[in-house]
Amino acid sequence: MSGGKPTLTAIAREANVAVSTVSKVLNGHTDVSPSTRRTIERLLAERGYQRPRGARRTGRRTDLIDLVINELDSVWGLSILTGVEEVAEEAGLSLVVSSVHNRQSLTRRWLESLLARGSEGAILVLSELTDQQRADLKRRNLPFVVVDGVSQPPPEIPSIGATNFAGGYAATEHLIQLGHRRIAVIGGPEQLQCTRARVAGHRAALETAGLAADRQLIRHSSFQHDGGLRSAEALLALADPPTAIFACSDSQATGVYEALRRRGLSVPREVSVVGFDDLNFAQWTAPPLTTVRQPLHQMGVAAARTLLRLVNGERLESTRIELATELVTRESTAPPSR
Amino acid sequence: MSGGKPTLTAIAREANVAVSTVSKVLNGHTDVSPSTRRTIERLLAERGYQRPRGARRTGRRTDLIDLVINELDSVWGLSILTGVEEVAEEAGLSLVVSSVHNRQSLTRRWLESLLARGSEGAILVLSELTDQQRADLKRRNLPFVVVDGVSQPPPEIPSIGATNFAGGYAATEHLIQLGHRRIAVIGGPEQLQCTRARVAGHRAALETAGLAADRQLIRHSSFQHDGGLRSAEALLALADPPTAIFACSDSQATGVYEALRRRGLSVPREVSVVGFDDLNFAQWTAPPLTTVRQPLHQMGVAAARTLLRLVNGERLESTRIELATELVTRESTAPPSR
Repeated sequence: MSGGKPTLTAIAREANVAVSTVSKVLNGHTDVSPSTRRTIERLLAERGYQRPRGARRTGRRTDLIDLVINELDSVWGLSILTGVEEVAEEAGLSLVVSSVHNRQSLTRRWLESLLARGSEGAILVLSELTDQQRADLKRRNLPFVVVDGVSQPPPEIPSIGATNFAGGYAATEHLIQLGHRRIAVIGGPEQLQCTRARVAGHRAALETAGLAADRQLIRHSSFQHDGGLRSAEALLALADPPTAIFACSDSQATGVYEALRRRGLSVPREVSVVGFDDLNFAQWTAPPLTTVRQPLHQMGVAAARTLLRLVNGERLESTRIELATELVTRESTAPPSR
Repeated sequence: MSGGKPTLTAIAREANVAVSTVSKVLNGHTDVSPSTRRTIERLLAERGYQRPRGARRTGRRTDLIDLVINELDSVWGLSILTGVEEVAEEAGLSLVVSSVHNRQSLTRRWLESLLARGSEGAILVLSELTDQQRADLKRRNLPFVVVDGVSQPPPEIPSIGATNFAGGYAATEHLIQLGHRRIAVIGGPEQLQCTRARVAGHRAALETAGLAADRQLIRHSSFQHDGGLRSAEALLALADPPTAIFACSDSQATGVYEALRRRGLSVPREVSVVGFDDLNFAQWTAPPLTTVRQPLHQMGVAAARTLLRLVNGERLESTRIELATELVTRESTAPPSR
């Protein structure tokens, strides 16, 4: 097959099937044998087939949009969901919610079900979008937007994020202004883009204040409670422990609280704690948590608005939008006692 | 109009419109004037019209089911959502999620949008289902199931709940076994069925142990953090304060923690605390919270399975299912120090 864009006809000829069979695969119909489907999927991918722009829009309107999320079981995803739902409701669209539990097979099934029932477009809140998934979506010319709490997608993919670097900077700057000099940071998994940005913000704030970064005071763990607990226990066991700990998620911060409680140390009198996210429970910890707010609800709103623009065939000025983080000062931070 | 079931023809004659117009109203089409719609809705309600059983099922299958929830912004609703989503995914159905913020107008719009696009059935997680809403759903012969964290619907409505009385009993029995004699309870709003059952369980446990119920130790507030905080402050200000507090929600329990922290009292050394729900954050409070687990995820699963049975035209052995609560002992309870 020589240059130029491959057509359905060409793909059908190469697969030795009818054009209608290729069309069925593209539209997620199930009455195609698995082996034929695989052959056609492979050819569509290899030849770089992409449905002509606008072709899908001539089909029936479904008034459905999709939100696909890795795990529904987190307040983090819930906050994004509330924003998406708000915009869908305003626009008179119904919101289909799917959880894929990080499993490729479920993502695959979601895509098939979506194609079978139709959808105006999708918002993806996945820790990782594989090249295969991106290609699948693109081939169907289905508008989609990625909300990336975790990793930043390539520049051609419309995505919504938060200003992680600025958030990390603000957290540590606040602690420095209170008088802290030994400030630890607990990052999320080291390979994640958002972790790198938050920890880089922390280090930049130290540098600006002329403070040396002590490698012992930089830890990495999961974003969950247990990660924060274990990291804080290691930090508190140091010969010269920190007087303040910046945890890169609120869940980690609850783990830091628990580590301090186990040692009989009081927050903030003996150790100050700052979190990241401002999930709803942050105001209900004892004491209420000082944290960096990620505007998750607004990120959901922005993702849905961006999706509606794509659905209506509008051009985006920028494929990447980052919403501002903001330090919320509550009662877990105070001047150091030593 | 004499006895017997009213027909569409009879309704149309009385409203002085075409039968197709009545049909449009029933199916949520929007091309009917508001005044005509109101007249027809009123007649359908007054005459007790109900779509013949099975009529809806002959239409196209949509492979959509609906979850309608008052507020998405609570971990409580989220846990139910995860259960519903799990069953929908297994059954190859897509789940449409709507939030109605306790507003009748939004519930109305949701119902219209649902009728316009079609749905196999709905799961309702609403603090209250009005008679009007029940009638609207029934008239359309749309299968639905109520999940009632809050109030118990009438017996003819399929519903899923939890054993609130047994949960309240278990919480207070646990505290009595630890040696507590002055045990306070913080209920939710007094008029709610679930509050009554939990507080009744608490009192029954006291009676079984031969302990008198002190009216000063029974408080009511919202189920939120602030309600727990204020109630606990009042309890701790008593001349003879309690040595243990049973809060009827985990969010209230976080408020109790905060009230104790403000007075410099330690959990559980000076005051024991038990919550209710076992939301995910209960294991992350400092100290981890002893609480009564409501199987919210499983309640979502049961609601969705019940709905699928109704969609398939099966008969239910029982319209009411209550799933068992369970005491989860963590670190917020201990023998009294005085």
